[in-house]
Amino acid sequence: MSRIGILGYGNLGRGVENAINLNDDLELCAIFTRRNPADLKVNSNTPVVSVKEIENWKDKIDVLILCGGSATDLPEQTPKYAKLFNVIDSFDTHARIPEHFKNVDSAAKEGGNIAIISIGWDPGLFSLNRLLGNVILPDGKDYTFWGKGVSQGHSDALRRIPGVKNAKQYTVPVQAALDAARSGKNPELTTRQKHTRECFVVLEDGADAKKVEEAIVTMPNYFADYDTTVNFISEEELIKNHSGIPHGGFVLRSGKTSDGTNHVIEYSLKLDSNPEFTSSVLVAYARAAHRLSKEGQSGCKTIFDIAPAYLSSKNGEELRATML
Amino acid sequence: MSRIGILGYGNLGRGVENAINLNDDLELCAIFTRRNPADLKVNSNTPVVSVKEIENWKDKIDVLILCGGSATDLPEQTPKYAKLFNVIDSFDTHARIPEHFKNVDSAAKEGGNIAIISIGWDPGLFSLNRLLGNVILPDGKDYTFWGKGVSQGHSDALRRIPGVKNAKQYTVPVQAALDAARSGKNPELTTRQKHTRECFVVLEDGADAKKVEEAIVTMPNYFADYDTTVNFISEEELIKNHSGIPHGGFVLRSGKTSDGTNHVIEYSLKLDSNPEFTSSVLVAYARAAHRLSKEGQSGCKTIFDIAPAYLSSKNGEELRATML
Repeated sequence: MSRIGILGYGNLGRGVENAINLNDDLELCAIFTRRNPADLKVNSNTPVVSVKEIENWKDKIDVLILCGGSATDLPEQTPKYAKLFNVIDSFDTHARIPEHFKNVDSAAKEGGNIAIISIGWDPGLFSLNRLLGNVILPDGKDYTFWGKGVSQGHSDALRRIPGVKNAKQYTVPVQAALDAARSGKNPELTTRQKHTRECFVVLEDGADAKKVEEAIVTMPNYFADYDTTVNFISEEELIKNHSGIPHGGFVLRSGKTSDGTNHVIEYSLKLDSNPEFTSSVLVAYARAAHRLSKEGQSGCKTIFDIAPAYLSSKNGEELRATML
Repeated sequence: MSRIGILGYGNLGRGVENAINLNDDLELCAIFTRRNPADLKVNSNTPVVSVKEIENWKDKIDVLILCGGSATDLPEQTPKYAKLFNVIDSFDTHARIPEHFKNVDSAAKEGGNIAIISIGWDPGLFSLNRLLGNVILPDGKDYTFWGKGVSQGHSDALRRIPGVKNAKQYTVPVQAALDAARSGKNPELTTRQKHTRECFVVLEDGADAKKVEEAIVTMPNYFADYDTTVNFISEEELIKNHSGIPHGGFVLRSGKTSDGTNHVIEYSLKLDSNPEFTSSVLVAYARAAHRLSKEGQSGCKTIFDIAPAYLSSKNGEELRATML
């Protein structure tokens, strides 16, 4: 049995709470929050504890799952808590992973703990498939497509535009580009060819739709390089039809092993809820963290460093008999 | 640099020879054969050596890749050579893996070597995806589809029928069943619903086509439980259109994380050459075997026991910066 703690109770924290419930060998012992614990309504009978008291739990939990955001929470929290606990996070700012790894690694070693960072599906399962594709087909090409799904970052960008009351943005992979990647012909695909962006926007009273649309489609980094569609809808419609957080995507590796002999490896996810799925991955890697720690290992790991058997509650013999 | 030896020079051995060529950190040092070495024409300048002399190579190669068959070669060869070398095999008789593991494990430990068994795509990459699917979505269902591709076992079964001169059998996944598995509704699918079998048969002169067809479609285990199509063709047509060894397939895990919240994970392969792709997987795991051995580990491992980072020639820092 592994005793788990959660820090942060947003969509991800609720997902972890739920995922632990589906795994008999994991027990949720505490939910830590920066808010007033009395104000937090959780979905289980788990004690809600102020993060100020977290040090008292050092010997009462085996792994702390960090459910904060990558922008400001995790760069501070993961190193901080890796000194006290085995920890897992879903740090997803790809460009800053090397720096985050370094900070977390020295903290985890100092504490004699295991930290597994950047767990989820991208980074995470998609990264694993990029690595496998590259080592198996060294003479080849990678393709990653995201969606159809809600991009939180792009939805936030829409909501910052003057005149926008509320908004949701879907990233949509272009079928023709996917088919080209699958063809085995290793095409070069531009940003515009691979994805389109669909925006559903609720305007403030009296806002100028034309101006808002122009501000969206020309926004650098976020929309200017894409074919972007803007749909103006009512707040009721947004709530009714666009409240979910679905996501998914595709990782392809296309390569040849000899002249004219091509192979395509494809990995895809179709997720009704991005945070619930990410949480489920975090929970499986929490099991691995506890095991590695029991073996006496310490330091920072990523999905690349974890042998898959550590993820399962079955032992090696059972795994070989049932899944190999 | 890892020094590799090959034992057995059929389709798989030739594939390994080729795959090593695509990896700068691997060097093919010897091809061992049970045949007369002088009779073997290989595609590289690699020395061809009689298997009788293999013990002399104990300190000259780091990993021996066993390219024999699962029926009779590997059950004998893998334990035998695990005493002398780090070894990899593609043992694919699922039901006998636990027994094979046990034999290889004690031999490898005796020799102080690493042995990695059942490497390829099924068992192998498909097994890895079954494990990942199960740990991430414990409340779900597995689906494995094979094809479209040539089944060697079924083609052999056809050729044993009196009146059949030559034959090729394709296993074909049924699109409707694949779509049902992808739907997230977790359907129960029967053997007949999941795959059809397409046979291309060259008759002996004077053979009775009706009788041969009847013998095929009623053959227990191989064809009786499937919708089987039999096409009689000329030997020229068989050679012209059916000489390739393509294969592939799909592993799906469909499950829910809360009521009404479903997720589908899909992994698929589309391979122009089954043996060339399998060889490429073997070669990546040979790299891992050498590394594990250098760390002082020994014993038998499967794909479940190997942390992905061991498969790549890049170090952890490079992997995190480029693929995570």
